[in-house]
Amino acid sequence: MIIVLKENPEQQQLKNLEEWLKGMNIEIHPTEGIHSTILGLVGDTTRVDIDLIQALDIVESVKRIQEPYKSVNRKFHPLDTVITVENTSIGGDIFAKIAGPCSVESEEQIIAIAEEVKAAGATILRGGAFKPRTSPYAFQGMGGEGIDLLLKAKKATGLPIVTEVMDLSQLDLFADVDVIQVGARNMQNFQLLKELGKSDKPILLKRGLSATISELLMSAEYIMAGGNEKVILCERGIRTFETATRNTLDISAIPVLKELSHLPVVIDPSHSAGIARFVPTLTMAAVAAGADGIMIEVHNDPSKALCDGPQSIKPDAFKTISENIDTLRATIKELK
Amino acid sequence: MIIVLKENPEQQQLKNLEEWLKGMNIEIHPTEGIHSTILGLVGDTTRVDIDLIQALDIVESVKRIQEPYKSVNRKFHPLDTVITVENTSIGGDIFAKIAGPCSVESEEQIIAIAEEVKAAGATILRGGAFKPRTSPYAFQGMGGEGIDLLLKAKKATGLPIVTEVMDLSQLDLFADVDVIQVGARNMQNFQLLKELGKSDKPILLKRGLSATISELLMSAEYIMAGGNEKVILCERGIRTFETATRNTLDISAIPVLKELSHLPVVIDPSHSAGIARFVPTLTMAAVAAGADGIMIEVHNDPSKALCDGPQSIKPDAFKTISENIDTLRATIKELK
Amino acid sequence: MIIVLKENPEQQQLKNLEEWLKGMNIEIHPTEGIHSTILGLVGDTTRVDIDLIQALDIVESVKRIQEPYKSVNRKFHPLDTVITVENTSIGGDIFAKIAGPCSVESEEQIIAIAEEVKAAGATILRGGAFKPRTSPYAFQGMGGEGIDLLLKAKKATGLPIVTEVMDLSQLDLFADVDVIQVGARNMQNFQLLKELGKSDKPILLKRGLSATISELLMSAEYIMAGGNEKVILCERGIRTFETATRNTLDISAIPVLKELSHLPVVIDPSHSAGIARFVPTLTMAAVAAGADGIMIEVHNDPSKALCDGPQSIKPDAFKTISENIDTLRATIKELK
Amino acid sequence: MIIVLKENPEQQQLKNLEEWLKGMNIEIHPTEGIHSTILGLVGDTTRVDIDLIQALDIVESVKRIQEPYKSVNRKFHPLDTVITVENTSIGGDIFAKIAGPCSVESEEQIIAIAEEVKAAGATILRGGAFKPRTSPYAFQGMGGEGIDLLLKAKKATGLPIVTEVMDLSQLDLFADVDVIQVGARNMQNFQLLKELGKSDKPILLKRGLSATISELLMSAEYIMAGGNEKVILCERGIRTFETATRNTLDISAIPVLKELSHLPVVIDPSHSAGIARFVPTLTMAAVAAGADGIMIEVHNDPSKALCDGPQSIKPDAFKTISENIDTLRATIKELK
Repeated sequence: MIIVLKENPEQQQLKNLEEWLKGMNIEIHPTEGIHSTILGLVGDTTRVDIDLIQALDIVESVKRIQEPYKSVNRKFHPLDTVITVENTSIGGDIFAKIAGPCSVESEEQIIAIAEEVKAAGATILRGGAFKPRTSPYAFQGMGGEGIDLLLKAKKATGLPIVTEVMDLSQLDLFADVDVIQVGARNMQNFQLLKELGKSDKPILLKRGLSATISELLMSAEYIMAGGNEKVILCERGIRTFETATRNTLDISAIPVLKELSHLPVVIDPSHSAGIARFVPTLTMAAVAAGADGIMIEVHNDPSKALCDGPQSIKPDAFKTISENIDTLRATIKELK
Repeated sequence: MIIVLKENPEQQQLKNLEEWLKGMNIEIHPTEGIHSTILGLVGDTTRVDIDLIQALDIVESVKRIQEPYKSVNRKFHPLDTVITVENTSIGGDIFAKIAGPCSVESEEQIIAIAEEVKAAGATILRGGAFKPRTSPYAFQGMGGEGIDLLLKAKKATGLPIVTEVMDLSQLDLFADVDVIQVGARNMQNFQLLKELGKSDKPILLKRGLSATISELLMSAEYIMAGGNEKVILCERGIRTFETATRNTLDISAIPVLKELSHLPVVIDPSHSAGIARFVPTLTMAAVAAGADGIMIEVHNDPSKALCDGPQSIKPDAFKTISENIDTLRATIKELK
Repeated sequence: MIIVLKENPEQQQLKNLEEWLKGMNIEIHPTEGIHSTILGLVGDTTRVDIDLIQALDIVESVKRIQEPYKSVNRKFHPLDTVITVENTSIGGDIFAKIAGPCSVESEEQIIAIAEEVKAAGATILRGGAFKPRTSPYAFQGMGGEGIDLLLKAKKATGLPIVTEVMDLSQLDLFADVDVIQVGARNMQNFQLLKELGKSDKPILLKRGLSATISELLMSAEYIMAGGNEKVILCERGIRTFETATRNTLDISAIPVLKELSHLPVVIDPSHSAGIARFVPTLTMAAVAAGADGIMIEVHNDPSKALCDGPQSIKPDAFKTISENIDTLRATIKELK
Repeated sequence: MIIVLKENPEQQQLKNLEEWLKGMNIEIHPTEGIHSTILGLVGDTTRVDIDLIQALDIVESVKRIQEPYKSVNRKFHPLDTVITVENTSIGGDIFAKIAGPCSVESEEQIIAIAEEVKAAGATILRGGAFKPRTSPYAFQGMGGEGIDLLLKAKKATGLPIVTEVMDLSQLDLFADVDVIQVGARNMQNFQLLKELGKSDKPILLKRGLSATISELLMSAEYIMAGGNEKVILCERGIRTFETATRNTLDISAIPVLKELSHLPVVIDPSHSAGIARFVPTLTMAAVAAGADGIMIEVHNDPSKALCDGPQSIKPDAFKTISENIDTLRATIKELK
């Protein structure tokens, strides 16, 4: 339920209303809208008498929200959310270009790639320290050591870092990580989401392989309900019957999510198609569809990558994509 | 199997080769490549001795084609296919803008919409005369009369027309239709495809709701195998678990199809999302991803449309899309 | 909408009611229920005043039917439909055992297989004359000659025959076929369904690869709306992301369909899994789940079959399945 | 790779072989087959010279295993695995009947239901203490207190208990739980699987909403690779386009899994269809298809259940199902 207040609401009335709601165990999430204040109510609002509230002088309008998600709902928070990450951001005017290898393999590798993607226009460095592998016999990642190397790369280049956490028990190691990633297979790891809700770090939440848009938003709601409002939604392809690509990039997710929610939306074209040579095309489609950023796997020697080599592109290819993104974005802004 | 001939092959040798192949019941599809001639072989090539052919003076190289589709295969025909439709085309420099109502409802309606979309930049007019309806109690279309009205609209505006045929038995009525559409539910109506293979009209082949890329190409192969090379592939969204949109637009289908086949690829953003307000965004994504054209449902009064009202856009919205397509295409050409 | 009449309704009142409804262009489908008569109304019933009808002496109750399908709806026709096929039936006490090769290959082959499956307990012989092949280069079936051979096999064994029609234009050849099959890829070939609605032959309607239960029922509705009430529904596996089997047998379709509709439901375990060695297990599951019959591909030499060899079982394996079906059915009847 | 040894292998040769393999960092998993010993090799076997091993006197045959899963592979362990749980078992002659409420709500509720399902033939009691809820605002379960109540119910009835763990951090609370369940959404929570691999408790592993059979087996492999061989696989319906049921029960998973793996397979018909009245039918299908057990949600007052009421059945309905299972199983054993 949202209550839209008139401009300059009489303070005592407002205070009374807030106390009455809190007495019914309802949380109030106020947002400054463009012209007025919106009170987003979270809790059991079924017993709240709409007519009673509508009758108050300070109230412009009241509306029940059908969707099960509240905090992530654009009706609660009409303006786009912009998330600051060190000296860059995700969700505002700056298009987020997140790039780096699938996994951190060595100091030399990660620093080399970091420098190349930095030079090519990346705004954030990605790299896997803890890798979710379908097989227990596959390379599981360098773990804590991988995070240290990412921090070295950050020091060397100034790029903030994003990396995936696979379990609550690892969270201590993420103290200096700038953005924490929740992988597709952990999108409904509710315990992890609740814990990340207590953090104040930005969370990059990947859509599950077969998660509906609604489920993705509810997982974001878990994090926001814990108090952490810095959630970035990431579409990375969904599982379908088609086998020509590894997953099927759901390009409609961009306009659908941006209509339903105020959170920024980034696309991962690397995991979507799973094929390096399609990454440029899918990136252009994502930009044209209104994405706030992309996350691309870049490796200086894909054939020797310890994971996901076939979908990784080389630094010079990334440079081309980066320049094309800028060109395309300039045009997108000109469109009617 | 494809045989690449050297430049200026000695004619007698070439004749001998062709006769030998025909003697084994193998059809030869010659294509002028950029620098050389390619002979595409269709038939049981398992008994053809590759080494024997490779040894011929006139032969540059021989290669077995893994894919079950031959004629549609880009390996058979490296250059993009451009299909002429009256004074416009699909697949070349001209971006095909196919627009019109879901179904033809009256002379006034179709002529009004035709004039508006023409003014807005449409290159081809669409309109349903025979409608595939899930329910036998729903409006089934005006039938032959609908085609007559489309022809009147063509006369009034100069726009060539595309409309769907639902059954072989209706084909006689399509004598003056410029492009014949095969609907998603008919993509594997093999009898219909075989018959259309005997026609020399361009065929707009829609991907089935759950057809794989491979199955779409094999259906195109049915038509080409019959002798009709003018096939346009159309991605219109596939069926998945997601319910936020009517179907899931498979944007990757564009680069995948254009890599595997020489046939033009158009996108139908109206049926994909099934929601009018997402049509502009999906159209931009399609253009950015390299589509050769789009097909959009336009109605001057969507709330009164006899079918698919919720996904139809108004003529002025189509005009905006049309202008944006031109702006975007100019930029896409500039990309590296 | 359905109207349940009280026992022994006063005739003049009933006549008035029927004329009033017909005057509104509504068709009446009467069914003798167990204790009373049910009038199923088909047409635009939105303007029918429920209270007015409820007030009539002869009326027990009135109810709007939410589902878009009427004739196939069990609410219209509470008792199970039993379809007679020569000296056997589908849908009643006799469990339909439909068996035969994927395609008719020769007189010797079809007669040999017919005799073997007959001896093993088959009630109906299947065999493809017109084959839907994904590739235009694959064996397309013997066509009309194949139907002649099936009729010879019928003459030799007494087994009625079921075979697939692929297009309206072939219907003349099916004059002596006992049951006409509509393939999965033709489930929404609406022209074909309308035409079959004019026939009085039983129609075996296969569920489309990605058709919902609702769409399957609407396709059956097309046939029934044309006047042909002899429709058998066939679940043959749906398309999903799983590749361990060719399709995924939707076993829940049996209880769901039997709850929603009065039409008989048979299962095709051969196309479902696509793997011969799983056919026995899936058949047992289908029997236990309440299916009215099964359709199994049987070939005396699967390795040489011209199509679908890997999913065909041998006659002796079919004999075992047939006996097991009888044993299992006896037990299913004993269950509480 | 598996090595099949001849009967009574010469001990010194065997010792030499084992040391040589260990020297290459390959783990040996020996299994007593019906007539011979099988050595299952886990590790990088690409450098192992098959011919060298085949030449040894003690070796009957050597074969590379294509599948990425080894320990779960039936080729490694040809006999069915039977897992003891207190005084009952899963996987052998005893058909596992796991029943209980979706969530533990109170001492009175869980004890009442436990007594009723015990009397009806249940072999194991289920009940959720930690609930995975899509919404952060929904009832999350009683937590540790819920486990205590389950233990009270165990004390009162003698039924062993199975309950879901949602995160590593909760494991301490599960010290007295008999079987630990990994929920569908945690099937690829690799950290959790690794940790459970160190436990010696039986693990009930639920198939993910869109997990392939292969991925399910690899998750089981994670647990077995950690040293815990007591894994029970559970099919609970997969996500598809069909909405008539909550999920689509993949009945083929039973024969496919039992062919690929030696681990027991149970079915959850409650979550599959999501509709209480279909639970009996799906249970019968599962029994007929060869499942080793079923897990059913039972509540004495479904309309008041705190979660999943619509799919819960009442105790007397469970009693009927239990009796029918026994009747059906007796028949299944008689089948040829």
